[in-house]
Amino acid sequence: MKSSLKRYLIGKPLKSDALGEQKLSKTKALAILSSDALSSVAYGPEQILLVLITVSTVALWYSLPIAVGVIVLLVALILSYRQVIFAYPHGGGAYVVSRENLGVNAGLVAGGSLLVDYILTVAVSVSAGTDAITSAFPSLHSYNVMIAIFFVICLTLLNLRGVTESASILAYPVYLFVVVMLVLIGVGVYNIITGQVPETLHSPVGTPVAGISLFILLKAFASGSSALTGVEAISNAIPNFKDPAPKNAAKTLLAMGVILAALFVGIIILAYFYGIVPNNHATVVSQIAEASVGRNVFYYIVQGTTAMILVLAANTGYSAFPLLAVNLSKDGFIPRIFQIRGDRLGYSNGIVMLGVAAIVLIILFEGATEHLIPLYAVGVFIPFTLAQVGMVRKWLREKSSGWIGKLIINAIGAVISFVVAMMFLVTKLPQVWPVFIFLPMIIVVFHRIKQHYQDVGEQLRLEERELPNIEGNIFIIPVAGMTKVVENSLHYVKSLNVEKIVAFYVAFDQADAKAFEEKWHKWQPNIRLVTYYSPYRSVTQPLMKFIDKVEHQYGKSGYQITVVIPQFLPKRGWHHALHNQSSILIRAALLFHKNVIIMTVPYHLKK
Amino acid sequence: MKSSLKRYLIGKPLKSDALGEQKLSKTKALAILSSDALSSVAYGPEQILLVLITVSTVALWYSLPIAVGVIVLLVALILSYRQVIFAYPHGGGAYVVSRENLGVNAGLVAGGSLLVDYILTVAVSVSAGTDAITSAFPSLHSYNVMIAIFFVICLTLLNLRGVTESASILAYPVYLFVVVMLVLIGVGVYNIITGQVPETLHSPVGTPVAGISLFILLKAFASGSSALTGVEAISNAIPNFKDPAPKNAAKTLLAMGVILAALFVGIIILAYFYGIVPNNHATVVSQIAEASVGRNVFYYIVQGTTAMILVLAANTGYSAFPLLAVNLSKDGFIPRIFQIRGDRLGYSNGIVMLGVAAIVLIILFEGATEHLIPLYAVGVFIPFTLAQVGMVRKWLREKSSGWIGKLIINAIGAVISFVVAMMFLVTKLPQVWPVFIFLPMIIVVFHRIKQHYQDVGEQLRLEERELPNIEGNIFIIPVAGMTKVVENSLHYVKSLNVEKIVAFYVAFDQADAKAFEEKWHKWQPNIRLVTYYSPYRSVTQPLMKFIDKVEHQYGKSGYQITVVIPQFLPKRGWHHALHNQSSILIRAALLFHKNVIIMTVPYHLKK
Repeated sequence: MKSSLKRYLIGKPLKSDALGEQKLSKTKALAILSSDALSSVAYGPEQILLVLITVSTVALWYSLPIAVGVIVLLVALILSYRQVIFAYPHGGGAYVVSRENLGVNAGLVAGGSLLVDYILTVAVSVSAGTDAITSAFPSLHSYNVMIAIFFVICLTLLNLRGVTESASILAYPVYLFVVVMLVLIGVGVYNIITGQVPETLHSPVGTPVAGISLFILLKAFASGSSALTGVEAISNAIPNFKDPAPKNAAKTLLAMGVILAALFVGIIILAYFYGIVPNNHATVVSQIAEASVGRNVFYYIVQGTTAMILVLAANTGYSAFPLLAVNLSKDGFIPRIFQIRGDRLGYSNGIVMLGVAAIVLIILFEGATEHLIPLYAVGVFIPFTLAQVGMVRKWLREKSSGWIGKLIINAIGAVISFVVAMMFLVTKLPQVWPVFIFLPMIIVVFHRIKQHYQDVGEQLRLEERELPNIEGNIFIIPVAGMTKVVENSLHYVKSLNVEKIVAFYVAFDQADAKAFEEKWHKWQPNIRLVTYYSPYRSVTQPLMKFIDKVEHQYGKSGYQITVVIPQFLPKRGWHHALHNQSSILIRAALLFHKNVIIMTVPYHLKK
Repeated sequence: MKSSLKRYLIGKPLKSDALGEQKLSKTKALAILSSDALSSVAYGPEQILLVLITVSTVALWYSLPIAVGVIVLLVALILSYRQVIFAYPHGGGAYVVSRENLGVNAGLVAGGSLLVDYILTVAVSVSAGTDAITSAFPSLHSYNVMIAIFFVICLTLLNLRGVTESASILAYPVYLFVVVMLVLIGVGVYNIITGQVPETLHSPVGTPVAGISLFILLKAFASGSSALTGVEAISNAIPNFKDPAPKNAAKTLLAMGVILAALFVGIIILAYFYGIVPNNHATVVSQIAEASVGRNVFYYIVQGTTAMILVLAANTGYSAFPLLAVNLSKDGFIPRIFQIRGDRLGYSNGIVMLGVAAIVLIILFEGATEHLIPLYAVGVFIPFTLAQVGMVRKWLREKSSGWIGKLIINAIGAVISFVVAMMFLVTKLPQVWPVFIFLPMIIVVFHRIKQHYQDVGEQLRLEERELPNIEGNIFIIPVAGMTKVVENSLHYVKSLNVEKIVAFYVAFDQADAKAFEEKWHKWQPNIRLVTYYSPYRSVTQPLMKFIDKVEHQYGKSGYQITVVIPQFLPKRGWHHALHNQSSILIRAALLFHKNVIIMTVPYHLKK
């Protein structure tokens, strides 16, 4: 039943050699890998205006030059990551670039930041999308957390079904959003050009503003740059592309850059000309839609597709996180399970882990995950900076053909990313301080995990040596009574012809001990019985003591101890609750604390 | 660390032969077994007044004849249970009496009702006590559930420490409550006798009341009888008394009856003479205290001890539930774990189970457990009735000396209990209907559990028969690589001199299969290797298939299959998370689905 539910939700398992069919075409890849970046059009421009409005409405014209700055950064990032894609065609993005060029710790800072960042992406964007929906239907507001969790579960299942299947489904809403936004911008720009928008709505570019400072402008720029957080994802997900993967990935990246730039600039321009002032009641995009097309059907389509793209932005995390985790796992910094492909050939452990972590965050922050946004932005711009510094070092070292041009691109990207990261650290310190605790911690954990894997590897590696001879075997059978279960175990053990067989009984009172021994000798005269009296009613402790004694007596002469646990298995699951689980406790105690072989002889009940 | 915390909370384990020291003297037993009954003084009289006030304040004088009725019932119950104690000196109360005299199902109805009832006692009385406390400190009100859970955990730990230790601690507040109440009643009665209480406060006994009906009076009587719910506990807990247990238990029961009657009548009389009218702001006891002694220190002592006794009433459940569970468990109707004595010789599984169930109820009802009171009262009076009908049958059958007198006592008890139970069923149907679903269900479950134990017993019982000879042993060793862990397992298996040893490897691609086989033959030329290719990346499924094949081939010729699982054990707990737990999955699949012996060969890592 469990497995048929799994089949229904996730689909039939796929054979390993079907991996090729699970690769993405450029259009599908663009849909699932750019949803995060594109969705930020819904809040990035607003972030800029929110900072400027703290000075005055006159200052809003600064959004235009700031938008230019954001576009410059976007171009630098796109070109820069294009170079990353070709230089590291197997994916890994900032993690691999930093590790290769700046050393392991720089790589771990980048990788650790991004891992956490993808979790934050999922939590933040699903919460934002849920908010957008419950704003439209206020009666749902008290179910915010439940709805958000439901979306996360849906996305997790969709991704467990496989990357192509989720891409096929998610492509529609993503492209719909792009088309709707382009139409909105088209209509708005048409209105502006045809003079239907009064000149009085906005202060002209260049109007002097009292109280404006470089700090405010940089802060606004940094806030606007949070729209660029999804750019990195494609470089992580190269292995998901159809061949030639790097080339396709680079083209997809370029397409994403162009669309993102168009939408971003479009929204900023409309907001400026319509004189939009951000407020608590309606988002900037919603105000633009209302101003340019009015409150008609199209307005609601804009709102609906925006809510949808916010939820789907989370999917970028689902595409990039598992692949980044595979890279970190292959290097031994995180558990190996992240390398295992699930039934549908996706890295299902990474997908499930991402979903669970996002749900935990949503519950902890009760859906109010917007507090995580600054943390999230820092977590993106640190690896951005590291990746590009890494590329700069690569060009300096390799000096391959055309390296000066490439170096300039990456250097510009590095400087701007660094400035943005610093701006976030300086202006949002009260929200981003956990980075300084969390990053060192995660790096220590990464190293400890790696150390453990190395230790294990060394300890397991075969070496030329003579193993000490096993001179004989002692089988100890703890018995709780005289039943068919015990009879069955004895029958089996006798067939092995081992040197010594001892039955072991724990009595809770002296009279019982005596009675049991007498009955035993009649039943199994050839099998020695040792009885211990347990004043504290424990079965495990006397057994451990007895094993110690046997070990002490026979261990030196090369005897190996095996403990045989007779175990009956009831027919139905609920029956287990009706029987003392002492065999499980005994087994666990032996496994962890004693160097004995443990044998379970099952006796399956028929009713 | 875990075990030292346990030591700290619960105390050192006790030897089985220290059981005698864990018995209760009469004064201690009275304290812990009567707290439930005595605490009902705090709400029983109020229940009567609450029903009468629905007619008019003039009707309040009816509380006096109703109190007489309650006392008659109390006398009947005390005498009746006194006879139960001597007739069934090993405890078991209503369950054993009903089972012996009215058949198994009557016993199960009584036992099942009481089991649930003790859980309700704990939840209801702890919630009531918490309410009393948070009424005094309203700022704590939002922590009601947390505080109630805290009290339940404290009581659970106290009872896990052992019955004498909890009795020693709990005796003080219980006796303090009794003394404080007697003082309060004494002062009040003194005031009445000395004429300090105006005659105008109450309508004289016998004043005609418009709208009063037999139904109302019976309802008031039934509500007042809820004060008698704790009477049964002593008959369940006889084994906890010092020898001669039945005699001591009977004396304790009598003492409890006298105290309960005195307090109940006292409160009713004071309420009548002071003309107390129940309201939402202050309890009847609190109004009496204010009227008779004023709002001084003593008033707060009355309030404090009342709150305390309400919480401690739960302790009666802790004393009686585990012993009732032992009785049901010995008869095979509930799981056997309830018969196991814990470190401190109490039936710790029963104690823990009771605590957990009460916490679940408190959380489900968010502390507003007063809705459970009617359910709880029905759950008490059903076994009361059954127990006494059972005793009547016993006397009719045995006709031992003085049987007619005994029969009359039990018959009166039976009739009154039956009337009270019916009154609850009729007047509170909207709250008590779950009884009709729950009781049949629990009885079905009881029988199914018993059936299972009988089935298991039959299947395990030894019988004269020849077990089919094991002609040879085949050992299958699933290997995941060529490591010391595998080497260690092979070394051990070779020492057993079994007929056939096969290593089994699952390859995820064809190239790997070939490479592995070549390396294996160089390493272990004498051990046959079978390789399966797993297109779906499962290890368990190919292994199961292989076992099926071997079974098919060799099973008929009397070969027994043993699967040897090489398992390395990391040094620290957190390391487990870093390794695939496939050996656990393989073992579980084999244990539940195959008739093979499973052997775990541990390899303990040193760092």
